[in-house]
Amino acid sequence: MAELQNDRLLRALLCEAVDKTPIWIMRQAGRYLPEYRATRKRAGSFLELCKNPELACEVTLQPLERFDLDAAILFSDILTIPDAMGLGLYFAEGEGPVFAHPLRTKADIEKIGIPDPERELAYVMEAIRMVGAALNGRVPLIGFAGSPWTLASYMIEGRGSKIFAKVKGMLYSEPLLLHRLLDKITRSVTSYLNAQIAAGAQAVQIFDTWGGMLAEPQYKEFSLQYMRQIVENLTRKCRGRRVPVILFTKGSSLWLESMADTGCDAVGLDWTLPIGKARARIGDRVALQGNLDPSALYADADDIRKVAKDIIEDFGRGSGHVFNLGHGITPDIDPENVKALVDTVHEHSVWFHKS
Amino acid sequence: MAELQNDRLLRALLCEAVDKTPIWIMRQAGRYLPEYRATRKRAGSFLELCKNPELACEVTLQPLERFDLDAAILFSDILTIPDAMGLGLYFAEGEGPVFAHPLRTKADIEKIGIPDPERELAYVMEAIRMVGAALNGRVPLIGFAGSPWTLASYMIEGRGSKIFAKVKGMLYSEPLLLHRLLDKITRSVTSYLNAQIAAGAQAVQIFDTWGGMLAEPQYKEFSLQYMRQIVENLTRKCRGRRVPVILFTKGSSLWLESMADTGCDAVGLDWTLPIGKARARIGDRVALQGNLDPSALYADADDIRKVAKDIIEDFGRGSGHVFNLGHGITPDIDPENVKALVDTVHEHSVWFHKS
Repeated sequence: MAELQNDRLLRALLCEAVDKTPIWIMRQAGRYLPEYRATRKRAGSFLELCKNPELACEVTLQPLERFDLDAAILFSDILTIPDAMGLGLYFAEGEGPVFAHPLRTKADIEKIGIPDPERELAYVMEAIRMVGAALNGRVPLIGFAGSPWTLASYMIEGRGSKIFAKVKGMLYSEPLLLHRLLDKITRSVTSYLNAQIAAGAQAVQIFDTWGGMLAEPQYKEFSLQYMRQIVENLTRKCRGRRVPVILFTKGSSLWLESMADTGCDAVGLDWTLPIGKARARIGDRVALQGNLDPSALYADADDIRKVAKDIIEDFGRGSGHVFNLGHGITPDIDPENVKALVDTVHEHSVWFHKS
Repeated sequence: MAELQNDRLLRALLCEAVDKTPIWIMRQAGRYLPEYRATRKRAGSFLELCKNPELACEVTLQPLERFDLDAAILFSDILTIPDAMGLGLYFAEGEGPVFAHPLRTKADIEKIGIPDPERELAYVMEAIRMVGAALNGRVPLIGFAGSPWTLASYMIEGRGSKIFAKVKGMLYSEPLLLHRLLDKITRSVTSYLNAQIAAGAQAVQIFDTWGGMLAEPQYKEFSLQYMRQIVENLTRKCRGRRVPVILFTKGSSLWLESMADTGCDAVGLDWTLPIGKARARIGDRVALQGNLDPSALYADADDIRKVAKDIIEDFGRGSGHVFNLGHGITPDIDPENVKALVDTVHEHSVWFHKS
């Protein structure tokens, strides 16, 4: 593999000195880009795009052509694992992900197995290898997976939810059965992320979209505990470099300290807590990623520059900050606003890294 | 007005001694009750039910017939004010509230006026008077309104949103215009709640459904500031008793202290922060309301009893706790589970109030 020309992301994730604050954007390869929409159209559907390594590689690289981003993130979906477990993922128009065979009974949960990443998820590994070859060391590639709690929520509900009636009912009334499922998912995610690292991912992020729907003690028992197990069992060194791990739970401002104590290298923030306050709580134990409100990108470019500067100033001097949004970029954002953001972060942060 | 026979709610909201912990449930007059669904069918639609004082009174009283609740809450909707401002509220099937005339321009915002509660919202005042007469002092009646930020979000977006593109775009790029709107809504909510108090509401709650979508400094500037103004301008004594005010912002665990400092009597909690931790942070400055996860009601009755007891024990001894859910009850809950909850709260809390 070619030597990395821009290692700003990997260094910042390890709190090592950098020349400017690195930036990448959750869902940066996505619908707000017209070239993405064109490729997706050629693919047929979102899921066919995910499962086609050539096209997944193509859309992964698209945002790097437009913006001076410091990382690529694999174009894929967190629900590839349940799909590989046989739950039959599809995307209903205007509704988001749906499983044809959600988990309804103890027998359903007993039946599912741990997918072999190089077999059932070979298309993901192939896409990673293709992206790695195409990047040729330009920037690092981030791999990712959903958290066990988030995947379990989708697998039991069968689709997205605001209420989580079924999985919460199970949490309160059949906690041991839920733990049994979470354990299987944890082993699957661990093996999936390790395969991504072996295939070329140079950092990985665990997305816990729904952990913030839990009360704090439940979060620790049903979500964080399993993310910690994953962190402990990941290959943390590959091709001579440390592979940093980022934990991101939306709605986790209350319990950031516990996340920082898992052994991860960085904690991803949503936008509710100012990053300066997060740094004051966490110190330099781990790096922090975030935390612009994704909806700030609906403002004018000048206002976006201002709020980006505010975040850089609020974090303050020194390394350990990876700029990002507090959640994924939304589909109707003007790409010019993203350019204003990326350039401002690089230009404005230089002073904060001078020794 | 008849003397109040059960003043447990009012006393607990003022941290005065009670014999057991009072309980009411957000959206307790709602779709989970078959008798509510029957009345709504007779009314024609949700909005017709809100606007019909006889039927609104009928559904307000329904949950009190089934459960040993310590308060009635007026059956109504937070969007009555924007409707009275001429935005044309309707409820689209399966989509929730929609405005026919959302606020899109500066001129739209300049144009709207402050509704006269006894004229444009006379149907609400009439319902309150009817409920008061029917209750005849059995339990107190809670009035309510939406928070200025929450109402502004609906009025600008035109409907519910997960992203809040338009109102956030305005917040970042035209903050003064947004403040102009928030000021008008604040004056409307203040006059509306004072009219409710004059008509017979014995406590009031401000519902800030969407304040938790803001970053902390924005929350203080665009939501909390206006709720404080309302609290300061409410009639706090009526018919010889103090009228307690409850502030509820979903997703506010980070900044509870600021809410407690507004002059309100009680802060409503969602379910993310254990109530014992909230009490440790707030002390006895204000009462706390909450905080069972609404989805816990999907568990079996025995498990519901257990988590209700946990919350009572976590709050600990002494007054200042009003039991409630952390958000509204969902439409498909078994009423028997609600009965198990209400009875457990009363039975289990007696010990914690013994001197």
